[in-house]
Amino acid sequence: MKCKVLELLRSHREPVSGEEISAQLGVSRTAVWKHIKTLREEGYEIVSQPGKGYLLKGIPDLLLRGELAHFLAGSMFARSIQCHLTVGSTNDLAKAAADQGAPEGALVVAECQEQGKGRLGRQWFSPQGGGIYASVVLRPPLKPEQAPGFTLLAAVALAEAVQKVAGLTPGIKWPNDVLLAGKKFCGILTEMKAEMDRIYYLVIGTGINVNTDPQSFPESLRDTATSIKTEGGKAVSRIELLAVYLKNMETLYKVYLEQGLPPVIEKWKTWNVTLGQAVSLTSGGEVFQGRAVDIAGNGGLVVVGNDGEERIFQSGEVTLRTK
Amino acid sequence: MKCKVLELLRSHREPVSGEEISAQLGVSRTAVWKHIKTLREEGYEIVSQPGKGYLLKGIPDLLLRGELAHFLAGSMFARSIQCHLTVGSTNDLAKAAADQGAPEGALVVAECQEQGKGRLGRQWFSPQGGGIYASVVLRPPLKPEQAPGFTLLAAVALAEAVQKVAGLTPGIKWPNDVLLAGKKFCGILTEMKAEMDRIYYLVIGTGINVNTDPQSFPESLRDTATSIKTEGGKAVSRIELLAVYLKNMETLYKVYLEQGLPPVIEKWKTWNVTLGQAVSLTSGGEVFQGRAVDIAGNGGLVVVGNDGEERIFQSGEVTLRTK
Repeated sequence: MKCKVLELLRSHREPVSGEEISAQLGVSRTAVWKHIKTLREEGYEIVSQPGKGYLLKGIPDLLLRGELAHFLAGSMFARSIQCHLTVGSTNDLAKAAADQGAPEGALVVAECQEQGKGRLGRQWFSPQGGGIYASVVLRPPLKPEQAPGFTLLAAVALAEAVQKVAGLTPGIKWPNDVLLAGKKFCGILTEMKAEMDRIYYLVIGTGINVNTDPQSFPESLRDTATSIKTEGGKAVSRIELLAVYLKNMETLYKVYLEQGLPPVIEKWKTWNVTLGQAVSLTSGGEVFQGRAVDIAGNGGLVVVGNDGEERIFQSGEVTLRTK
Repeated sequence: MKCKVLELLRSHREPVSGEEISAQLGVSRTAVWKHIKTLREEGYEIVSQPGKGYLLKGIPDLLLRGELAHFLAGSMFARSIQCHLTVGSTNDLAKAAADQGAPEGALVVAECQEQGKGRLGRQWFSPQGGGIYASVVLRPPLKPEQAPGFTLLAAVALAEAVQKVAGLTPGIKWPNDVLLAGKKFCGILTEMKAEMDRIYYLVIGTGINVNTDPQSFPESLRDTATSIKTEGGKAVSRIELLAVYLKNMETLYKVYLEQGLPPVIEKWKTWNVTLGQAVSLTSGGEVFQGRAVDIAGNGGLVVVGNDGEERIFQSGEVTLRTK
């Protein structure tokens, strides 16, 4: 019933009287008042205008299940939503859900991660307040060698979302580091369970420093990490950013399944800050130096070495070199 | 103590008296007699020669933990051995063990699988009596795109083991169907958990029709399936075959880690029945017809299509076509 009260307030741009809510929903005015009180406690800004009624003026910037369901209505990511205050790692919860048969699109969100994970077993600093920590389960009818395409796809979805919601223009460093002013504000970790012939499931985990204060970062990160608020100068709605990101991801996922990776790569290239650059690429303990020249059809990075040798890397870590 | 009695009998080629066993192990002669009785019940053939003592003449053809530990002594596959009579699927148990931190080399063996799994979600018929159903956990410091190499590697390890133990010469159909007289007697299912930059673990599951009677197969399989006993005309020791297979796998695994896949591919080619053949390759719902001409450096199958186009497949299913 609380949700129905909220939906009713959402659908009105003018104040609605307690009497009208009571009549429309068939509950007592006391009950209406109690639900309004609870919603206010959850952070909803509901003003009471004497003689007119209640008006919803603001929603809390909390990743609440009901809010996500509202913003994601009709999307595959609205099918199964888990919201937590504190978790170990959203990817671990999403993998556990996938092992238990969670549907494609299952979403796990947290306000804080105690063991947030980055690539290669690294930590992803995940403080409470201002960050998005979200993981989704996908079950693409594809093969393991097609999985790296999803790291490009997720980066494009995020770059587009940041531009739309925050009005900023990020750059993507291959494969999926999304940067603002050359600094990292987002990490994407894609994990999979598969046999050699097909993927069972992918979990794409995303950590985004949205309104996070970089002063709260460990000192070792302060030079290289940033947040959207820091770069844009104002806070943005986390709910809106997450919803736009996931909707973009769904759109690109359909493109990948229907048309293959090339159209995703074309979009990726519009955000690219890697191609044309002198790079050091660390992959499997080896460091390769050269110039990044292209993205291969399967998403790999094509690098021409200093000795003229061309190599394609499916994974690895790029450092942009200043000459 | 039962194991010590067994080890003592194993180490003697002549009968050992109950008195001597009793003295060497520091237990009563009644205790010795009870352990001998238990071992006999487990299937050990221990003859009692009047006036001389006990002689171990045969070990049971059961995949017993103690026997496997004995045959695999010193191997990475002796680190953690689980033996079961009946399981759902050894791969599922091995994955669960790996998720719980099982060491590299962890081995799960069963006499019978109720839900034996093949590639692409198919069933692997796993009756009790005569078959080997075994899964191992590997944790290679490699990337997901290097995982398909293990399917070739496992097939080579098995082909070599069958030749050594059964004296037969199997053929390998790409990627890892090991055949006798053109019929399948073995299935290998490789599963993995990974992030895009590294494999967390691989589980390689192997089902082998060793002494299985093909008359026990479902009718739909009888034309295409066989067993080692059927083709060789005599039963072979399952314990020995499994131990030789796993030791071969360990050797090839070291070669792969130290020298890369090419030397494994060279060995694979000596068993090959695919290259030079007209093939239909089904991969991701697509059927490609042509001639299999080579194995790529990463283990993929190089096929020249009927239209002259050359393509490399990382996974898929090959049908050898009769022209």
